[in-house]
Amino acid sequence: MHQVTGWVAQAPGAAPGPWTFDRRDPRPSDVVVRVTHCGVCATDRHALAAGDVGVFPLVAGHEMTGVVDAIGDDVRDLAVGDRVAVGNIVDSCRTCPPCRAGRENDCEAFPTLTYAGADRVSGGTTQGGFSTEIVVDRHFVYALPAGLDPAGAAPLLCAGITVWSPLRRLGVGPGTTVGVIGIGGLGHLGIRFAHALGAETVALTTSEDKAEAAKALGADDVVLTRDADALTRQARRFDVLLDTTGHPLDLDPYLATLDVDGAYVLAGIPPRRLDIDPMSLVVGEKRIVGTGSGGVPATREMLDVAAEHGIVADVEVVGPDRLGEALERLGRGDVRFRFVVEMP
Amino acid sequence: MHQVTGWVAQAPGAAPGPWTFDRRDPRPSDVVVRVTHCGVCATDRHALAAGDVGVFPLVAGHEMTGVVDAIGDDVRDLAVGDRVAVGNIVDSCRTCPPCRAGRENDCEAFPTLTYAGADRVSGGTTQGGFSTEIVVDRHFVYALPAGLDPAGAAPLLCAGITVWSPLRRLGVGPGTTVGVIGIGGLGHLGIRFAHALGAETVALTTSEDKAEAAKALGADDVVLTRDADALTRQARRFDVLLDTTGHPLDLDPYLATLDVDGAYVLAGIPPRRLDIDPMSLVVGEKRIVGTGSGGVPATREMLDVAAEHGIVADVEVVGPDRLGEALERLGRGDVRFRFVVEMP
Repeated sequence: MHQVTGWVAQAPGAAPGPWTFDRRDPRPSDVVVRVTHCGVCATDRHALAAGDVGVFPLVAGHEMTGVVDAIGDDVRDLAVGDRVAVGNIVDSCRTCPPCRAGRENDCEAFPTLTYAGADRVSGGTTQGGFSTEIVVDRHFVYALPAGLDPAGAAPLLCAGITVWSPLRRLGVGPGTTVGVIGIGGLGHLGIRFAHALGAETVALTTSEDKAEAAKALGADDVVLTRDADALTRQARRFDVLLDTTGHPLDLDPYLATLDVDGAYVLAGIPPRRLDIDPMSLVVGEKRIVGTGSGGVPATREMLDVAAEHGIVADVEVVGPDRLGEALERLGRGDVRFRFVVEMP
Repeated sequence: MHQVTGWVAQAPGAAPGPWTFDRRDPRPSDVVVRVTHCGVCATDRHALAAGDVGVFPLVAGHEMTGVVDAIGDDVRDLAVGDRVAVGNIVDSCRTCPPCRAGRENDCEAFPTLTYAGADRVSGGTTQGGFSTEIVVDRHFVYALPAGLDPAGAAPLLCAGITVWSPLRRLGVGPGTTVGVIGIGGLGHLGIRFAHALGAETVALTTSEDKAEAAKALGADDVVLTRDADALTRQARRFDVLLDTTGHPLDLDPYLATLDVDGAYVLAGIPPRRLDIDPMSLVVGEKRIVGTGSGGVPATREMLDVAAEHGIVADVEVVGPDRLGEALERLGRGDVRFRFVVEMP
């Protein structure tokens, strides 16, 4: 064991501050990562401010980039000094059908989450990326492609894979029209990836002042959804709607904007039960699709595509002393488009 | 114009009786079909007993077989005396993208329904298959493959295509596990088609006395869902759940029985809004999928597959004088598995 520094809330809603805690010494298959950047996701806010996961003190943070500081004896394909990235999963059973299919996020024995999870060897509670260092099994450490800015790349590991996975799984590409609902941490990356995949990409937003930003991100068109008739005018336009808002939207008017076989993807998780007219799905054979993050192969592909197209998140970089402020501003949507904590 | 006999309700819930009405003389592209058999679907019950479509007198019936009695001048590929079938659509715009893709049921200008629809030429109200004759454009008349019993084949045109379309669209076949919820008019054909496609086929039913019937239909296994823990024991078992009940089921426990990427198909239309925990979809990237009937190419393929595998509905054949009794017994599920009215 060795000591590292994390930035924690000691109780729900408490101001995050530094805390010294133990990381394990590397097992043979482990990589010791000196964290340089860690994005701030809504999930972190729920965990720290609302105490969703019930673990305190809690080191949150699950989308990070860093540098390899040490490797276990069995690690052959990463070296000290390599730029790497870690996401929201640090282990899984490795033997169930989803794990064998590279869908580790769907592990039948439940994946080990990056924080507030149970370490599969020690049984201890995992602690996340708002820390100077993290120790992770090689399988869940990603080589960061050259050319990706480590600050802007950090959010790819959660926000990025969350929007990439469904776009890829649903076959988005040239000839498809994708509507991205919400232009925030997830949505702005959704626009970039949909555009990179060659889809006609439309941003749907309530904020008139985000229209220009959406176009700069790669949107071919912007629909302002504050106008009550705006959705009516988009009837049958979209093959895929990527809802990144996490808000409990009135789904029926959005479903009416889907074309035949169209898919409405819940990329954010609304805090209420879904309430849907079955006819909204029956007419046109439409779908509501859930999506989690992504497994190791999808994450690797996402990083490669990001490097190929120069896709990173637009970030506001803050020091760990400003984590509390970042959480609070994130809560009211005051960020374009992702906070990233830079470790000292 | 010429006169034919239909069996109608004169008002919501009235006992159906004979009624003389006009059919158009054939247009050049029309086929005059002497109806021999017409299945009784829950939709007919809603239309006749509850007055859902607001048309009275109403000749319902939208899954029928018959014999060609006459053809229009432009019809080259059907001849007088041919066995044919007609389903729930008798026309569509033919020019919109779904129509051009053979998804006429998704016509952007709305398809002309077999009854209570507006004829695209005359503007008159269409009347359905509980009649001695129907006149339909050739495009929506299907040659009935040899070997299919006309009584048992009639329900294929609505119940059959409704379950066939999603099974086919979702790629059901060897290596997939399909759960068919409900063993009725739709469900018993769902079991037969899923089995014919090579899927591991499981019937889910609340009726212990239908278990043997389900196995005889081709189910590899039966799950009795009255047992509160029965669904819990099926966790992650199904790739596709075909809900044929039309009841407002508690969806979350069923969604938990889906494997990663699994699809819950609404083949029956519940009378209430869907109420779903978003996490039931997010964990495992699951889908709720709507489905309508099917277009012309899918219907033709379904009939070919039915002929190849000898699939027809199990029917109780009644004369038109017993249509009222059939509707009433259908309302309480007292039929195995479909009533078919045989025309005099």
